[in-house]
Amino acid sequence: MRLSRFHLHTSKETPADAEIVSHQLMLRAGMIRKLAAGLYTWTPLGLRVLRKVEAIVREEMDRAGAIEMLMPSIQPRELWEETGRWQKFGGQLLKIRDRKDGEFCYGPTHEEVITDFARNELRSYKQLPVNFYQIQTKFRDEIRPRFGVMRAREFLMKDAYSFHLDADSLAETYRVMYEAYARIFSRLGLRFRAVAADTGAIGGSASHEFHVLADSGEDAIAFSDGSDYAANVEMAEALAPGPRPAATETLREVETPAQKTCEEVAALLGIPLSRTVKSVALVGEQGFVLALVRGDHALNEIKLAKLPGLGEYRLATEAEIAEHLGSEPGFLGPVKPARPVTVIADRSVAAMADFVVGANRRGWHLAGVNWGRDLTEPDLVADIRNVVEGDPSPDGRGTLRLARGIEVGHVFQLGRKYAEAMGATVLDAEGKAQVMHMGCYGIGVSRIVAAAIEQNFDGNGICWPEPMAPWSVAVCVINPKGDAAVTEAAEALYRDLRDRGVDAVLDDRGLRPGQMFADVELIGIPHRVVVSGRGLDAGTFEYRARRAADSENLDRAALMARLGLA
Amino acid sequence: MRLSRFHLHTSKETPADAEIVSHQLMLRAGMIRKLAAGLYTWTPLGLRVLRKVEAIVREEMDRAGAIEMLMPSIQPRELWEETGRWQKFGGQLLKIRDRKDGEFCYGPTHEEVITDFARNELRSYKQLPVNFYQIQTKFRDEIRPRFGVMRAREFLMKDAYSFHLDADSLAETYRVMYEAYARIFSRLGLRFRAVAADTGAIGGSASHEFHVLADSGEDAIAFSDGSDYAANVEMAEALAPGPRPAATETLREVETPAQKTCEEVAALLGIPLSRTVKSVALVGEQGFVLALVRGDHALNEIKLAKLPGLGEYRLATEAEIAEHLGSEPGFLGPVKPARPVTVIADRSVAAMADFVVGANRRGWHLAGVNWGRDLTEPDLVADIRNVVEGDPSPDGRGTLRLARGIEVGHVFQLGRKYAEAMGATVLDAEGKAQVMHMGCYGIGVSRIVAAAIEQNFDGNGICWPEPMAPWSVAVCVINPKGDAAVTEAAEALYRDLRDRGVDAVLDDRGLRPGQMFADVELIGIPHRVVVSGRGLDAGTFEYRARRAADSENLDRAALMARLGLA
Repeated sequence: MRLSRFHLHTSKETPADAEIVSHQLMLRAGMIRKLAAGLYTWTPLGLRVLRKVEAIVREEMDRAGAIEMLMPSIQPRELWEETGRWQKFGGQLLKIRDRKDGEFCYGPTHEEVITDFARNELRSYKQLPVNFYQIQTKFRDEIRPRFGVMRAREFLMKDAYSFHLDADSLAETYRVMYEAYARIFSRLGLRFRAVAADTGAIGGSASHEFHVLADSGEDAIAFSDGSDYAANVEMAEALAPGPRPAATETLREVETPAQKTCEEVAALLGIPLSRTVKSVALVGEQGFVLALVRGDHALNEIKLAKLPGLGEYRLATEAEIAEHLGSEPGFLGPVKPARPVTVIADRSVAAMADFVVGANRRGWHLAGVNWGRDLTEPDLVADIRNVVEGDPSPDGRGTLRLARGIEVGHVFQLGRKYAEAMGATVLDAEGKAQVMHMGCYGIGVSRIVAAAIEQNFDGNGICWPEPMAPWSVAVCVINPKGDAAVTEAAEALYRDLRDRGVDAVLDDRGLRPGQMFADVELIGIPHRVVVSGRGLDAGTFEYRARRAADSENLDRAALMARLGLA
Repeated sequence: MRLSRFHLHTSKETPADAEIVSHQLMLRAGMIRKLAAGLYTWTPLGLRVLRKVEAIVREEMDRAGAIEMLMPSIQPRELWEETGRWQKFGGQLLKIRDRKDGEFCYGPTHEEVITDFARNELRSYKQLPVNFYQIQTKFRDEIRPRFGVMRAREFLMKDAYSFHLDADSLAETYRVMYEAYARIFSRLGLRFRAVAADTGAIGGSASHEFHVLADSGEDAIAFSDGSDYAANVEMAEALAPGPRPAATETLREVETPAQKTCEEVAALLGIPLSRTVKSVALVGEQGFVLALVRGDHALNEIKLAKLPGLGEYRLATEAEIAEHLGSEPGFLGPVKPARPVTVIADRSVAAMADFVVGANRRGWHLAGVNWGRDLTEPDLVADIRNVVEGDPSPDGRGTLRLARGIEVGHVFQLGRKYAEAMGATVLDAEGKAQVMHMGCYGIGVSRIVAAAIEQNFDGNGICWPEPMAPWSVAVCVINPKGDAAVTEAAEALYRDLRDRGVDAVLDDRGLRPGQMFADVELIGIPHRVVVSGRGLDAGTFEYRARRAADSENLDRAALMARLGLA
């Protein structure tokens, strides 16, 4: 492509209404333009990137044996009534009435349509397993569309749906899709993690989310540095630490007149925060409970809710606290409560000796506390905290690291939910009708573009991973005097690169070098080659990788080697 | 592709609700499935064809210098209000309210969105001309969707929009698009005509329609056998015939007791229909008019409406006819009317001598009628008839032929209409704001698939032009005994064809030959190669072209030559 024949429209100003880096840079680079809230036009530049992502997704889906098809974007209400989702899906479902007052929606997903297709097309177990996919425009009527294409209303998605006679076959296709997703994100050049969306062990889960790692990500992820274990921080299991050490201190009261938090108490006493214990008073289905986590840990409400006896718990009121502990918040603890209370200790608390808790007395804490001696063993020891950086990985391999992620893919074992609701059966080998098992597998194609930028940018603009870049190499011409030899050398290099299969672009717009280089950096071209009269005289090209600090003058052979063409 | 890993689902039964051949065959071949009225799922088989069309369209648009982008399908009402089309577009515009009660439509076309994009992106004449295109899903809420994807509500379209400083630049891009369209339909292997949508002369028109020729087409087209002239039958000009011959007969009354039509009169008198004249009584802006066309010609209402003085005319009532002509319908004529009437004669009528007209008297006609002698020359001589097969081509080259066509493309010089309404201007070389000129260029990508079938089918199914076929070559295995050598020979041929870049499919489903061949013919694969034990023993493959009456046994070299691979 010659830029003089392309439509490039960059801007130096950061748009006021763009909150995140990818949105800002996509607008500045001129990749997208807003049409209305959550509706974006992909400019020629933006579309080049989108299509590169789409092509890699398609190749890997085909390679994994999925079969491409294309369903309508507009779907009839009747199908959504069959699964109960016409009501349940909520406000994100864009409902539409046609001229004959028929009710439809703009599909946010296609479980209903594909299940209807499958119940008509699939009759025998011999047709299974089969995995259909499409790359198609979807719509979710977000109540607060924002962050550009990261949370747009209209977006491009790859959605796949597999059908099976039994759960084993589903698990096998699920594994194939999981691996295809890993290949897709690897090929795109992105740092990512596959996150178990519920229980945590890879392969044992019915659902994984694929996250692109980026500091701006909405989700906190814990992953192992010694295996491919990864989970949402709130889902990751905190293992039990080693055995409890022996007591070395005696129990004593310490005065903490204004120190209510663990941080304040630890500072006053000059001890590590990990020697303190936080007592949280709750009321669950079976009454008043004291939940204990280490001062440097955070209580995990999701894990807590799953414990027997707690159910739909809530924080205790000050009155309830006074009644059961005889104290006020800030000085609570499990030692000698006013009334007997149920104590739930986090695994790490149960493994502590010589620790500090509230004394159930205003202005006082207890130090040198030890289980069995100063208070009875906890009623329940469980994992009730969030993991932290440095925890051992739950799979026993490596140490946990924390990162933030942007969800760009999701694989899900749906089981028979939709097939059951819609009566999608096939005949098995005995001629008996069997409800099919289903899997669904989504990738946010347009969202990947924004997520990639969140992961790959610097002060000058986007730093595309090469597979996603609008072009791999920019050939920039500096030729203020209109020297024919310079023009011809640039054209020759450009044509040569194209002939060798390199997706090169020729910047023949005749701009000043500063403007030209700023554009090439802003739009994130991985390799920049400058052709100038001075270089021509010296027999060199000026080469610079997008993230490199400096440029180098290379002869033709060295340049080709640098571009991987030697 | 191996068919055992594909989803093919054919049917022998012709669906009851499919009225036209393409709809029937697309359902029988399993290319599409109906989701709701005018909404179709493209199955894996159908999508393969759709994508082949899309790829050729994209390649030729790129080659012609158009730049691809992607606009949202959902468009805000505000833009449509600017052009007045929110009301004017009518019921086909699918209007939508989002959860915040904002009003939108599902875009049936994108003039408003692209003009909004252009007024924001284009500032200087230096950015012009530019031609943006997209390949995208559109929606028209047809009141009577039918004929499958031929007249669906949701459909795939390529739409392009060009922007220019002046009319000359628009005309130049229009020409480039016209040529790109001709290349697209040629490459697709379709017989087509570019039809002047108004005045008729190529290049001098602001609009051309591209029609795929097919007997089932909705539009009647006249085209020259000696040039590329083509026009809608109602638009094609009927040239004036040679000079009027001299009178040879005397005027006489002939009794036609029950003969009211020209056909009946000609039969009674034993003369050619072309010797009779049909008189049609009309009332236009300037009063009562008698329009005369030859008995074998059809009056053209569009041409008539353009004549001065007629305006919004209507047929005369029986009372008006009695008042002006003193007769009743069936016996009308221009000779001696009861009151003076305006006579408009078609060019061919004005060139007649010795003709037959009604006598303005029940049960009588006049024969041997001659202009100037029996009645005064017509008040107006004009082209007011449809052309017929055999008429000279209006461009002076060749003879007109008639055919039926399906509109699959349209190129249009919009001029400044939309740019004016939406204030889309650029600065010219003098720094003055100029309203841009626009062209728009559409192709019905999904419609082409159906149109191609209407043009290419036989009793056994679809006969795809090779560039559109889901696969070019089907390798069919006949191997009832499961002979490993036969399987291996088929696999080897299949792999060899793929390696040579042939889009081959291996029918390894293990069906009986009859079923297999019926499928391959129904889905229209251009080349069929059978690998069997018998052939293997003889060192031959059985080859059959889709439209050939018989198959041939060919050795490997001859087979490759037949497939164009020698």
